[in-house]
Amino acid sequence: MNGAESLLQTLVSNGIEVCFTNPGTSEMHFVAALDEVEGMRCVLCLFEGVLSGAAHGYAVMAGKPASTLLHLGPGLGNALANLHNAKKGDIPIVNIIGDHATYHLQYNAPLTSDIGAISSAVSHWTYTSQSASDIAKDTANAIAQAGIGKVATLILPADVSWGDNPNGAEGAVPINPAKVVSKDLVDGAVTRLQSDKKCMIMIGGRKITKEQGLMLSKLSKATDARICTEVFPSRISRGSGSAVIERLPYIAEMAIDHIKDIEHLILIGAKAPVSFFAYPNVPSTIAPDDCEIFTLAGPNDDIDQLLQKLIDRIGAGDKQPDVYPLNIPELPGGPLNAQSAATTIAHFIPDNAIIVDEAITSGMPIFPMTMAARPHDWLNLTGGSIGWGLPAAVGAAIASPDRKVICLEGDGSAMYTIQALWTMARENLDILVVIFNNRKYSILEMEFMKTGARGGVPGPNAASTLAIGNPDLDFVSMAQGMGVSATRATTAEEFNEQMKSALENKGPHLIDAVVPTLF
Amino acid sequence: MNGAESLLQTLVSNGIEVCFTNPGTSEMHFVAALDEVEGMRCVLCLFEGVLSGAAHGYAVMAGKPASTLLHLGPGLGNALANLHNAKKGDIPIVNIIGDHATYHLQYNAPLTSDIGAISSAVSHWTYTSQSASDIAKDTANAIAQAGIGKVATLILPADVSWGDNPNGAEGAVPINPAKVVSKDLVDGAVTRLQSDKKCMIMIGGRKITKEQGLMLSKLSKATDARICTEVFPSRISRGSGSAVIERLPYIAEMAIDHIKDIEHLILIGAKAPVSFFAYPNVPSTIAPDDCEIFTLAGPNDDIDQLLQKLIDRIGAGDKQPDVYPLNIPELPGGPLNAQSAATTIAHFIPDNAIIVDEAITSGMPIFPMTMAARPHDWLNLTGGSIGWGLPAAVGAAIASPDRKVICLEGDGSAMYTIQALWTMARENLDILVVIFNNRKYSILEMEFMKTGARGGVPGPNAASTLAIGNPDLDFVSMAQGMGVSATRATTAEEFNEQMKSALENKGPHLIDAVVPTLF
Repeated sequence: MNGAESLLQTLVSNGIEVCFTNPGTSEMHFVAALDEVEGMRCVLCLFEGVLSGAAHGYAVMAGKPASTLLHLGPGLGNALANLHNAKKGDIPIVNIIGDHATYHLQYNAPLTSDIGAISSAVSHWTYTSQSASDIAKDTANAIAQAGIGKVATLILPADVSWGDNPNGAEGAVPINPAKVVSKDLVDGAVTRLQSDKKCMIMIGGRKITKEQGLMLSKLSKATDARICTEVFPSRISRGSGSAVIERLPYIAEMAIDHIKDIEHLILIGAKAPVSFFAYPNVPSTIAPDDCEIFTLAGPNDDIDQLLQKLIDRIGAGDKQPDVYPLNIPELPGGPLNAQSAATTIAHFIPDNAIIVDEAITSGMPIFPMTMAARPHDWLNLTGGSIGWGLPAAVGAAIASPDRKVICLEGDGSAMYTIQALWTMARENLDILVVIFNNRKYSILEMEFMKTGARGGVPGPNAASTLAIGNPDLDFVSMAQGMGVSATRATTAEEFNEQMKSALENKGPHLIDAVVPTLF
Repeated sequence: MNGAESLLQTLVSNGIEVCFTNPGTSEMHFVAALDEVEGMRCVLCLFEGVLSGAAHGYAVMAGKPASTLLHLGPGLGNALANLHNAKKGDIPIVNIIGDHATYHLQYNAPLTSDIGAISSAVSHWTYTSQSASDIAKDTANAIAQAGIGKVATLILPADVSWGDNPNGAEGAVPINPAKVVSKDLVDGAVTRLQSDKKCMIMIGGRKITKEQGLMLSKLSKATDARICTEVFPSRISRGSGSAVIERLPYIAEMAIDHIKDIEHLILIGAKAPVSFFAYPNVPSTIAPDDCEIFTLAGPNDDIDQLLQKLIDRIGAGDKQPDVYPLNIPELPGGPLNAQSAATTIAHFIPDNAIIVDEAITSGMPIFPMTMAARPHDWLNLTGGSIGWGLPAAVGAAIASPDRKVICLEGDGSAMYTIQALWTMARENLDILVVIFNNRKYSILEMEFMKTGARGGVPGPNAASTLAIGNPDLDFVSMAQGMGVSATRATTAEEFNEQMKSALENKGPHLIDAVVPTLF
């Protein structure tokens, strides 16, 4: 077999059976190998930012990496923003990036670039394979990295791809299991939780399960510790039957206020909270200066086992967790806005749905409103780089074909990777996209206000860079142009009806929800 | 004034008066400065790949740099593919990339990344400004770099932007003039051109003017040297009245054959030709092994003066250059395909039009067919990274508001930066976009054939990554969704009528030209 075939066989042998692709000439032998090796599902995306976001959504829902196929440095550049998000969220991905043949690089052909330099910024691990006989082993190394939640990037020169590999493919790669948290750390946490200081447990990481929430709630009941998630945990199980748990606010001033009394902040899979951006006269760190930050577990530690140990040590096993009873709001009428849309969404979320949230300001009312909706998983943007939602919905739907995906998307952020709609149509994915079309970069208007310039009101030039009307974006036309059925809602009644209809049917649909800005 | 204002004033004072923007929080003080400093035109793009391509098109037509405003590492990532093209073409751009405040970087907030690493791959020059009092000087340094055809990237931490700059703005920056080619090199060229060896002058660089073509033709007449452009010169003046000049073919085997007899290859603003990609059993270099490659001038040398010197030394001043007489083909009828579309385009190209070519395979017949059309400038993709055409048309139209821009675009490449259509509508740019909708990555089918796998015929998995029908892309709907009027042509007659109508009117229009693949 040639190098590309041995690479592909090694991926498949390790359960990596989806490849999000946008190939070019240097990947053509990999493309040819797709029909020589069985078991790889190829999902074509029309832009690389779609496929990297899809790999993210897939990994979050499948609990294992997808692979991506990218064309040279520019292809990696196009994928970069969503790889950034994946890296920040410790989301496993195996990127395969074709490069020129090793002997061709010296000629600095037009598409030559320093792929390694670009990759280093968005991958935990980058390696350039040197020969066809090594590529399967190199792939195994990439898989081992991805297995512990890394973005692993393997650069595949064309001659490594087409060359003969006498060693063949590699078999199953041993993956390091989740680490047991040390007794010392558990002791430290117990001491703090049983002290008379004000404690908060903050949880984050790749996946916050319903069971973890219930265990945290028991701990809270037994110790009076507050329990909270980080601002944007990658995935959290929510809705009726799930534990009542706080969420750290996004806005720095609000977050600082939220935890201003905490004396011990115990982190489980979460990072110490910091402001997303710096502002004059606002601290960069969120916790009070005299708060002790105690890192109990990282995202690759065995958090289930840790929480059970804490419950056993504290004797919280018989506590009753606080859970949300099912509470479905009545359908609203009248004007369509972020609040009424949130109510409709809370009304209709079907059992076991997957919510992908990149609705930015318009999404703010939806999270609290859906606390007690039917049980669902909620996916967040972990790295702050927009253009993630539509692609992540693609990946989530491919990983979970029997679950409805609802993608909540801002108009501005939608336009970064709008090409994802085509892949939704091509793969007939069961995704309902709701675009909150407020014709603004609304969050930037808020950020402008915080500069204090011109009393917080943008002048004409600034305003023109923050408003995205003129012309108004018509997402119905764009969706239809990419093969996705679509409707426009301008009243709550229209939105109700369209949500109901879309959720009764399988397959992709888009609702262009015309709303005023939230602020 | 604050740092951002001094930056902006320094740009404007140096004639950099267009900024293609897609800002975020870290750039908000720059945005505020847009209303404090006069003379900067801001052009909002909905995706950063649009704005970097627009900056490219602008610089090529304006002969001076535009600035860009990008948000952090992910914003740069989104812009990367077209910055790659600009770097390869020595196209001047001044990128301003906002970063976190210097003191905030240590907290590794979600949007923190190594901007310098990413930038190094696509910029000739990258610098991170360290304080508000230095930012104007740093901007001047970036302008000096851009002035000699460089992609210059200035990273602007938020506190440098909002901090007070007691030094104020910088004034006019001295730009190194085009260099005079040494007498030794001219002597060397004359010796070769007057030898009995087979010579070819290959010209490239940022702009091949009509006058340069005529001078080359005189030299050819006087010396029997062949004259040729590189495959993709950034900009070339063409059509009736311009000199007859060869173009190096794109396909390596054809290019090798094209110059197989050449003994002296004299390069003026061009690089030694190499194959775009490596293939088993095809050489990486295009010139014959025994051909001497003589680099006479680079893109920053004074090529006009050089050509005049050569004419004087060789005594070619009274030679009659070979020029194309005006030759406008009759309008075709019947099926619409790449050939008939090329004929229609050649028929209609208006005087002084700007053609932006990213039509890939469907564009192949257009270049030869338009040799003797009305005079026009032709812009090429210099770095091979697709998704350049629509954005470059935006920039070209902004630089040349009195000229019609015709953007020839493949369906696959259009989808990388389709958001450019919105900016065309918002700025009411005089652009006719022709999408060649063949529902294939047709060039990749050709590349697959060259792998020899499966007798050159893709299996079902490979085929699914090369075909972009199912669902068919409807560019009329997409364009209308972004505010651009659009029509679909499926016959030559329809295409004729739509071309005529679009060229009679000002403002953006898109023709979705449904064509079979060329091969």
